Order: sequence, then structure tokens, then C-alpha cells
Amino acid sequence: MFNKYNIIVVGGGHAGCEAAAAAANLGSSVLLITMNMATIAQMSCNPAMGGVAKGQIVREIDAMGGYSGIIADKTTIQFRMLNRSKGPAMWSPRTQNDRIRFAEEWRLQLESLPNLDIWQDTVKEIVVKDGKASGVVTSLGIIIESDAVILTNGTFLNGTIHIGEKRFGGGRTGEKSATGLTEQLVSLGFESGRMKTGTPPRVDGRSLNYSKMEEQWGDDERGKFSFTDVDLPMEQRCCWITYTNEAVHEALKEGFEKSPMFTGRIKGLGPRYCPSIEDKINRFAERDRHQIFVEPEGWKTIEIYVNGFSTSLPEDVQLKAMRLIPGFENARMFRPGYAIEYDYFPPMQLDLTLETFRIKHLFFAGQINGTTGYEEAASQGFVAGVNAHQRINDLHELILKRSESYIGVLIDDLVTKGTEEPYRMFTSRAEHRLLLRQDNADARLTPIAHQLGLVSDERLEQVKQKVEAAERLVAYMRSQSVSAEVINPVLDQLKSSPVSQKTRLFHILSRPQVTIYDLAKADESFADLLSQYSKEEIEQAEIKVKYDSYFEKEIEIVNKMRRMEDQEINPDFNYSNLVSLSKEAREKLIKVKPRTLGQASRISGVSPSDISVLMIHMG
Amino acid sequence: MFNKYNIIVVGGGHAGCEAAAAAANLGSSVLLITMNMATIAQMSCNPAMGGVAKGQIVREIDAMGGYSGIIADKTTIQFRMLNRSKGPAMWSPRTQNDRIRFAEEWRLQLESLPNLDIWQDTVKEIVVKDGKASGVVTSLGIIIESDAVILTNGTFLNGTIHIGEKRFGGGRTGEKSATGLTEQLVSLGFESGRMKTGTPPRVDGRSLNYSKMEEQWGDDERGKFSFTDVDLPMEQRCCWITYTNEAVHEALKEGFEKSPMFTGRIKGLGPRYCPSIEDKINRFAERDRHQIFVEPEGWKTIEIYVNGFSTSLPEDVQLKAMRLIPGFENARMFRPGYAIEYDYFPPMQLDLTLETFRIKHLFFAGQINGTTGYEEAASQGFVAGVNAHQRINDLHELILKRSESYIGVLIDDLVTKGTEEPYRMFTSRAEHRLLLRQDNADARLTPIAHQLGLVSDERLEQVKQKVEAAERLVAYMRSQSVSAEVINPVLDQLKSSPVSQKTRLFHILSRPQVTIYDLAKADESFADLLSQYSKEEIEQAEIKVKYDSYFEKEIEIVNKMRRMEDQEINPDFNYSNLVSLSKEAREKLIKVKPRTLGQASRISGVSPSDISVLMIHMG
Repeated sequence: MFNKYNIIVVGGGHAGCEAAAAAANLGSSVLLITMNMATIAQMSCNPAMGGVAKGQIVREIDAMGGYSGIIADKTTIQFRMLNRSKGPAMWSPRTQNDRIRFAEEWRLQLESLPNLDIWQDTVKEIVVKDGKASGVVTSLGIIIESDAVILTNGTFLNGTIHIGEKRFGGGRTGEKSATGLTEQLVSLGFESGRMKTGTPPRVDGRSLNYSKMEEQWGDDERGKFSFTDVDLPMEQRCCWITYTNEAVHEALKEGFEKSPMFTGRIKGLGPRYCPSIEDKINRFAERDRHQIFVEPEGWKTIEIYVNGFSTSLPEDVQLKAMRLIPGFENARMFRPGYAIEYDYFPPMQLDLTLETFRIKHLFFAGQINGTTGYEEAASQGFVAGVNAHQRINDLHELILKRSESYIGVLIDDLVTKGTEEPYRMFTSRAEHRLLLRQDNADARLTPIAHQLGLVSDERLEQVKQKVEAAERLVAYMRSQSVSAEVINPVLDQLKSSPVSQKTRLFHILSRPQVTIYDLAKADESFADLLSQYSKEEIEQAEIKVKYDSYFEKEIEIVNKMRRMEDQEINPDFNYSNLVSLSKEAREKLIKVKPRTLGQASRISGVSPSDISVLMIHMG
Repeated sequence: MFNKYNIIVVGGGHAGCEAAAAAANLGSSVLLITMNMATIAQMSCNPAMGGVAKGQIVREIDAMGGYSGIIADKTTIQFRMLNRSKGPAMWSPRTQNDRIRFAEEWRLQLESLPNLDIWQDTVKEIVVKDGKASGVVTSLGIIIESDAVILTNGTFLNGTIHIGEKRFGGGRTGEKSATGLTEQLVSLGFESGRMKTGTPPRVDGRSLNYSKMEEQWGDDERGKFSFTDVDLPMEQRCCWITYTNEAVHEALKEGFEKSPMFTGRIKGLGPRYCPSIEDKINRFAERDRHQIFVEPEGWKTIEIYVNGFSTSLPEDVQLKAMRLIPGFENARMFRPGYAIEYDYFPPMQLDLTLETFRIKHLFFAGQINGTTGYEEAASQGFVAGVNAHQRINDLHELILKRSESYIGVLIDDLVTKGTEEPYRMFTSRAEHRLLLRQDNADARLTPIAHQLGLVSDERLEQVKQKVEAAERLVAYMRSQSVSAEVINPVLDQLKSSPVSQKTRLFHILSRPQVTIYDLAKADESFADLLSQYSKEEIEQAEIKVKYDSYFEKEIEIVNKMRRMEDQEINPDFNYSNLVSLSKEAREKLIKVKPRTLGQASRISGVSPSDISVLMIHMG
């Protein structure tokens, strides 16, 4: 009953939405299959996007024409640029979002794409012909043909929900799980594993006493994720911070003997850096309190997300302990926190394009690859969507480098090293993080997206203009000087030592206390010049001046490593013949099929001497 | 982990929402338990409220302080007053609604009620103590105590979905069913049955060719459901009409051998007046076409509801046949239509308050009572919510009469006659429908709601003022005349015969061709007077004048019947001693426990001579 599609995307979460949109925008006919059209793009966990390292990923997706940033912007109830006091590589945009509106906006966005169709059903099986994914079979027994399939099943594959000693099947609370797919893939030779994640209780905001908490407002000067123009809802909502205490911890401990985590009923590993509250008090026994973020779920709703209190203890223990948190004395829950175990496929079974090695034209994205987080999922979806299109059209694949994006780091880490616990992005995972800033994601990635055809000429032109404008400003500051009489009063005000002679603007701005607007205060002609530039251009110039030497060094390192990093390895390279490699290295290289010497060097078990062997062999 | 609630409402559909809101507004502490907070107040079937007889019910709910009308108004994408060309008893407001926004507005409405809490879970069992419902047990194993329980389970109790030969469990497509409750109630002696309902496929509006359909716009002059002030979204969306044809019918027939309806796999009876398309072509074989209403699902979405094409035939047959409908040649489905079977409890097990006879303080409302339709469900929910509160506080019960409301007709029909197929309201079911108009629902019911404490003094005052204003206008028209010279030119224009002498305005307006504004055209002082009245008051006056004699007669009939209708029967009346009653009458009277002689007279199997026996016995 269906015509053949180019690409079928299974799942309508963050990964599925970006995958379907990217492939459709490139010109593929796409069918998105979701169990329930009413829950497309649900934020299953916290009602927020971005944050440290994750905000950078959202900016990167946006720079390439994905939609996560735009949807988050449109539905922002609070914006904060985290780590403003640190260097610009650490600046991380983060939004609180209206959960209902976020899902609605994504759905309308998908509906607006001419090449994208939607079908409500559950996929039971992949159709495989000649080693290639060529369609799906649904629970209605319908066979739908396609040239490629992207799986973005989230936590739904054999999902099992745990609350205390209770356990039941479900992909999320109140929703069905999906069965059949894992079993088929395992029968085809895939390796699968179990992971675990969790979510906190949701509470009735009317039952909280906010006077006992610290207010947390958004930034006065609102930022946003998207480099494009988005109508932002301007009013912001307040969030709050409170803390657990010894009494809370003691109350939680009373449930430990019924905890599915501690009694071994949950086999899958959970996200190390997003632990449950019971995990935190267990692992960090020395800490007498943990922070709790009290986050509204939308503009008007009374529902509150209790960030930091993820738990799968029995619901009565959850409530009893929660009521010992200041401000939560009379808290009423809408639903308890829970843990969920689900199937994932260790990602070393994937190429850097997110295509599986075992079945051609089959792509995996999101939690199915062992990651956690909306942003990680969305970015993989985007890359899988692009590569599925490129693959079936024999076009150039999209492989982002570690030195040009967090997304490149994410995927390289996954497919090169695998992961045994839910993988979350951190700035520390990116060795070149100084270059991978939220402010320059457009300069880094929009040209790549433009080449793929995902971004208009006009948009590329805007990025170029921004970069050039900043460079002009920097050049001006390098060449123009200011006299000591003019600048010293300003420096005095800023408690920065005076200069004794005419000094280049560039050098003055290099001082940590001085901002570009301080220069303008002293130097009228510079103020005139600045008034001709946009806020973003001025910020770019300022960052370049202040961190110039660091950037230079980092670029040098990247260039030095480039020889190895870019040295391609023939995908058919026969490692078995290279007896001088260690046995482990040989096995791993055969499994991971690294695309470059750089990727090979990051495989665990591949030593520098193994790399030398490879280098020699490849000349 | 919960304090005791006054009232627990199980289910968050139209019935559950109104029940919870009404009880909370009366002052009861209420807990609404829903399987999924994300799907509260989902319009599971068509994205519309009201229509013939149903629109009157929404106005009645609104007149008593329920919310269905307000929510529908706020989310209206198209408003039409059906049957404008007929008498005012037939005028029926109907809206198309934005499905997502409707659910969102209901959820926000519930959240705004201070006495109402929400808990996401599934109820497995009612706690019964001393023959009284006193709480529930959830699937998490939590026991929550209460003074009363209201069940509004919709189609979820042992829900089974059918599409062609496929069958799977579910309360709606993509959602789980609820098990356990029916089994418990049956073990407690309740009688249960199976019913069936269905829904059409949803299609992608971009795939339709609207040029082959008839446009159907809303009314230029927008009406609304609510008697209160509601901010209406002013722009309206277009709907369309198209028709099936012989080719469509032939294509559908090819699926008949796989139809769960015709092969007997579905045991439950479906709604006679909302039949599936296969039912229609089967039962009305002589008709060569059926109307299809093409209804958008919201302001911005491309999703379309194919009203009139409900079906449970195999999905490929659905699509093939649908594509033979003009405008649907290239239609793409989002999901197929399906039938759903579910448990209901024959409503003769209920008192007129919707409390069950068998378990005290247990109330049923909505599809669980064998009805179909959002409006029928919502109104029962409202009545159950009120009566649960009144019951546990030993307050006066809310029993609406057949002569004062459609809701009274609905509930009297259900509990007196029962129903074996989904019960839908029609104007023909109301013997006093001339009095039960949408325009006077406030005059009929707001005073009752005010007495209960559901409506403010101010609102009651407004209703009184409207009624009195209309009466003043009518009195003026009864007393004031207009000369032949003045009125005849207007009558001539309207092709109404001239008068030969001074005539009362009242008599002129009685003529079908003449509107109250025509009188104003002729008579300047009357025009001045009218300008001091609101549109609603003027309309009331006009209706009163035009249909005065009919109303008088109807009121006379009501009054005549009142003696029998209002003659109360002691609930402990012992029919077994009355040997002069027929055996059947005795059995039925014992079962139904009629509250009045009037109700007794409507029980099937109770003959006029049985009523005479009762009358004699009661004096």
C-alpha cells in the first residue's frame, strides 16, 4: 500500500526528527514511522536543551541546517549562557523549554517538509536483501520498501521500567515498548547490550514552598541557539535551586534494599554523569548535600521537573525523602521517578557515517548507539539522515573531524572506542575544544552544510560576512594605537596598570580586565567604527583578540596532527597479513575498520608501535 | 503515600475532566488518575465538539459551570450553527477544534483548580469496604483512599483494536489497555458487556486535491458555546465535503471477507448512528454515495480527519478505496482507521445520580455506561462529579429532569432503559425538545448550578437580566402597534401580505418572513429601543415571539405530565408484595429502582396498567 521510499526513519524522538528532516531536505523521499503521532519529539526527561558541551552541539546542528536549535528557541521559557565567567570555549547556551510546545513545534516543522511523510505504526523487522536494508515490516504486517533505513528507537527496544521492586514493560511510562527488532538484528549477527537510564519524579508546583529555595533567573540579555532569525518568546520564567541533606539521604537509604539498582535486578549500566540520587549518595558518601534544580515544564503548567533527583526507589520512599528537601515539605507527586532498561547496540559495529558494517544502508542514531542526551541523539540523527541520503545517491559522505566539531568527537568516540555506559558529551572529551566554541559553530560548519546543499547561498554569505567583519575589526585593532593620555583614565577605572606610551588597541584588549566596549569609551573613532558592526561580529573580534595566542597554538597542534589524522586507510586494508601488529590491535582494527590513521590510533588496544607498523606499511 | 482524598476520578478523558473539575469546584479534594499525563483530554476521534443535540449538551454543561464549552471555544478553528434554517429547537452549535490545543487547554484548566491533584498511574482495583467504594489500588500497587470513586475508563477496559484480520490490545491506537477492573467488578456482581466503536484513517492534507471538493466555511458571524466571555481565535479554517461513489463501495467490498465486523470477530455492537463506511454500504445498499467531511485537525497541522469514513477493513483496502474518492486520488495515510472493542457496564445498574446500586459511592460516567460521543461523556462526568460530592456530604443530589435538559434525557434513558449499542443523543430522544434549546440552556440550568454553588451570584444575575430583558422586549411588542402605512412597505419588500390596520409588533413578528430587525427598519422608536439590548437578548425575544404558541403548548404538556413525572417513589418501596403487577414489571422495577412514577412508566416491560397499580397503591 506504500510506494517505495528512499529512506525510512524508525522513531520520532530527537534523533528521528533530525534524521528525517535532514534526509528530506536533501531531496530524499522519507517516511518517519512513529508508534504515536501524538508524542513526536517528546522531551522524555528534562524540559531543557543544551548546557555544557551539549549547547555547543545544538549550535553545531543549527549551523548545518538542523532544527533542534530553532525549536528550542521558539519554546524557550528561560535562557542562560553557562560559564560566562570562564573562557569562551566554555560558554554553553542552555534553555528551559515548554514541553508541550516543543513537541508541537517539531511536529509542525516536520509537517512543513514536502519530502517527508509520517506513518503511525511499530516496526517489527528490517527487510534485508543482498546484505542491504531495503525496507521494514510493521506490526500491522505491512511491508514498506526503501533504499535505506535509519533506526532511532530510543529506550523502546524491549524497554523495562523499574520502580522499587515493581517492573513492567514500556518504552516510557504510560507507553508500550517495542519488541522484535533486537531479536532480528541479533539473529543477523549484531551484538546487543542493555543500558539503563532514569528520570526523576514530577511534582505539582503548587505544593512547593519557593521561599525556601534560591531563585534562578535567566540571562537579562537573552541569547539563543540558532544562528538564524527566530521569533523568541521574550518573557522568561524563574527556576529554583534547593539541596538535599543528611535527612533526605537517610530516608533514601531506607529504600536501598528494594532498589532495583542495588539488588541487581537492573543489569544495564546507567549514565555515570547523570546518576540517580541513590547512586550519588552511595558513591559520594562524604557529601552531605546535593543540588536540586526545580524546573517548570512550560509557560503555564504547574508541572515541575525535579532535576537532580532521578530515582528508581519505591515510590513511597521517593516521596518521603523528597519531602525532607527544603521547599518540598508538602510536595505532591504527579508521578514517581523510574529507571528504564533498554537494548542498545554497541557502536563499534558502526562506520563513522553511522551506517552499520553488517547491513549496508542501515543506520543507527541516538540512544540505540549507547548515548544519553537529546543533543547527542539529535546530532547523530542529523548525521545519519545526511549520510543515508548521500549513501544511496553515491554522494560524498559527511564525516566531521574531531578538530572541527563536537559532533565529530562524539561519533569518532562512539565508533572507535565503543561505550559500555550511556555516553554523554563533555568539553573534556574534545582535545581541540578551544576551537570548538558555540560562537564559531557557524564558521566551522555552515560551509560544510552548504556544500551538501543543506544551507542556502544567502546563509553561507552571512556567515562569511560575519567572519570577515570580525577579521576587519581585529586588523584595525592590530594596526591602530591609542595614546597613553587617552587610554590611561579608562585603565585606571578598570584597575589595570597604565601604559607609558602609544599602544595598539589589540594589546590593550588582550588584558583580561578590558572589554572591547572599554576601548570604545576611550577612543571615539573606534566607537564610531564599532557602531557599524553587529553584536555577534564585535563579540567574535573580541574573542579573537583575547584568546589569539591560545587559538594559534591549538591550530598549530591540529595542523601537526593532521598528517596522521588525515592519512586515510583503505577500507579493504587487510590487517590479518600484518603479523607485526599485536594480536589485540589486529582484532580491533578489523572490527573498527578505522578510516584514518588518526582514528586507528585512538582504538583501545592499538599502541603507538602498532601505529608505527601501519605507517611504515602505508608509506 | 497519599492522604485520603474525597473523590478519586479514574480516567482523564472528557468525562473524567468534567467530573474532576465539578467535584473540585464544589470543594471536594479530588485526585484524577490518568495513564498518561501527556494525553489528558485527547480528542480520540473527530476534532470537533457539538452538533445536533450534542451542541445543546455542551451549552447545558457550560450553563452549569462545566468547562467543555470554554475549552472548545478557545480552540475553535471553525464554528457553525447547524440547522439555522429550521426552528430554534434545532439550532445546534458545532465547532472544529485544534486537537493539540484542546488537550493543552483542558490540562491547564485542570491545573488551575486548587482542589484537584493528578496522578499518573493505572487503576487495577476498587477498594470496597462495607459495600462502599473507599479507594483504589493502582498498577504500582499503591492504595489510595477516598470517600468516593468515579470510573470514566472510556474504551480502555480490556480494549482490543481491530484492523482487518489483525487484532491487538490497546485503549487507543499506540496506547495500552487497562485490565483488572472489569474482572473485579464482575466478581462483585456487576454485569458487563462488550461494545465497539471505530475511527477513520487520518491523512496528510498535502496529498489531497481540494479543487475536487466543496468548500465548507464556518459562519461569518461567529457564535460560541460558552455563555461566559471567552477570547475566541477569530480566524477560521476551511473544511471540505466530498462523496464516496460506486467504485469506492466496490473497492471496500473486496475487504469484506477480512472485515472483523462481518466475520464475527467483533462481538460488541457499534454505534448505529455513527456507522463504519462498510456498515453504511452494507445497510444502505441502495445509496450510491455517502458524504465525507474533510476536517483539518488544527490551526497549522496538515493532519486531516476523514469524517464519515470510519472503518476497520484491512489498511490496504482502506487506502485503495479512499483513493477512489474525488480529491483523494493521491491520498497518503498517517494511520489507518480501526475498530476498538471495550468493556462497558449496562447502565440499568445505575441510579439517576450515576451512582451504582451495587457499590455505594461508586459512580460511572462516559463510555463505560455504553454511550458514544464527547458531549455525552462530558455531561455524565459533570453529573457524576457533582453527585459524588453531594453524596459524601449528604447534600441534595443533582437529578436533571427530561423537561429541563438533554442531560436529563440522556441519563434517564440510560438508567431506565439501558442500552445495548453505543447510545448517542438526538433531538428526537427529547419529547420536550422545543423547550430544550441551545439559546436558553442558561435560563434552564444556571439557577440549578447556582444553588449547588457551582456558579457565582454575578453569573446568575446576568442570566436573570437576560431573561428579563427579553421579557421586557416581548411585552413591548405585545403592547405597541405599528400603522399599516409604516409597516406595509417593509412587508412588501419581504413578500409578506400587507396589513389593513394598525397591528401589534408581536403579530407582525409572528410571520415567518419577518425578523425583529425588519420591524426596527420600519419603526424608528423600536429601533432605538433595540439598540439598548444585547444581541442575545434580542434573539431571545424574537424566538419567544415567533414560537410563543408552540412553547405555551409544550409547557402545558409538561405541566400536565408533572403530576405523574414528579410523583416520587420511595427507594425502599417493596414491589415484591404487589402481586397485581406483571411479573416482568416487578422484576424491572426492582432492578431499575425508579425515582418517580414518570421514570417507572418509561421502563420497557412496565405497562400503563402496571403504572395504574402503582398509582393506586401510592394514593
